Amino acid sequence: MLIVGIDPGTLHLGWGVIRTEGTKLVHVDHGIIHTNPDDELARRLVTIDDGLEEMLREHRPEQGAVEALFFAKDAQAAAKLGHARGVALLRLVRAGVSIHEYPPARVKRALAGNGQADKHQVGMMVKTVLGLREVPGVDASDALAVAITHARVAKFDETLRAGGVKLR
Amino acid sequence: MLIVGIDPGTLHLGWGVIRTEGTKLVHVDHGIIHTNPDDELARRLVTIDDGLEEMLREHRPEQGAVEALFFAKDAQAAAKLGHARGVALLRLVRAGVSIHEYPPARVKRALAGNGQADKHQVGMMVKTVLGLREVPGVDASDALAVAITHARVAKFDETLRAGGVKLR
Repeated sequence: MLIVGIDPGTLHLGWGVIRTEGTKLVHVDHGIIHTNPDDELARRLVTIDDGLEEMLREHRPEQGAVEALFFAKDAQAAAKLGHARGVALLRLVRAGVSIHEYPPARVKRALAGNGQADKHQVGMMVKTVLGLREVPGVDASDALAVAITHARVAKFDETLRAGGVKLR
Repeated sequence: MLIVGIDPGTLHLGWGVIRTEGTKLVHVDHGIIHTNPDDELARRLVTIDDGLEEMLREHRPEQGAVEALFFAKDAQAAAKLGHARGVALLRLVRAGVSIHEYPPARVKRALAGNGQADKHQVGMMVKTVLGLREVPGVDASDALAVAITHARVAKFDETLRAGGVKLR
């Protein structure tokens, strides 16, 4: 199964694609779509949409993972982020990708075993889990982290369905 | 000149198209794109995008007017609104529409002469200015209001350029 993780932002949008092979997670590709800060927001959304379309055409993931809406920041920042996230969700759905959302604390816990882990710890775990030589840029790391989270949750659900783990 | 105004929202997205004929403003059409509250956000964005695409294909406006980012509400509401606004901006740019943004208080002042006017006053002025028989639904009224604001600002700029009004 091919999974794409997305870390939305209007200036830098990170993405990461992984493949599940049995219980193994294999790194496929990752990248960051950078927009021009001098461009108007609407133009930056076009850059994001074009970049995502190209990535989706190349990798054709079946499932997508995005951090759930959760904001400690101010409303203005949240609204701006919403623009990028909206464009990303639309593009994923248009490409036939099923979307799964995970709260940030859940992603941190899945990667570092701790919902309060910082970005550095998450990046190190992404590197370790996927056997990368370097920690990817922070936006790409976060995107790979949410993809890994989904892979593990999906695997756990599958195990549950197969009767491998009994709850209650 | 054909101008489309947009009042974004994830549940109800209002739009209104007007035409300028000299100093006169003519109502062309308006509507509200309703999404299914039971649908996931990503699916609702597809409904919005499809609806906008259809409207833009029918009317082919040259200029678009949208309220500028300005939020008194909480971050969660701002983020959600951002999703719809981002999809709308993207769709407008893709359709070759130039985008103009106006702060809500500016729209109220342009319509009712008062930056603190309420939605009812704005709706009544939209009805009067465009010679409509009824006040359109609130989302469509707001969309027509921002389109009217842009028409007036654009007209004023044109007058300025023609030397009709001298500042300083």
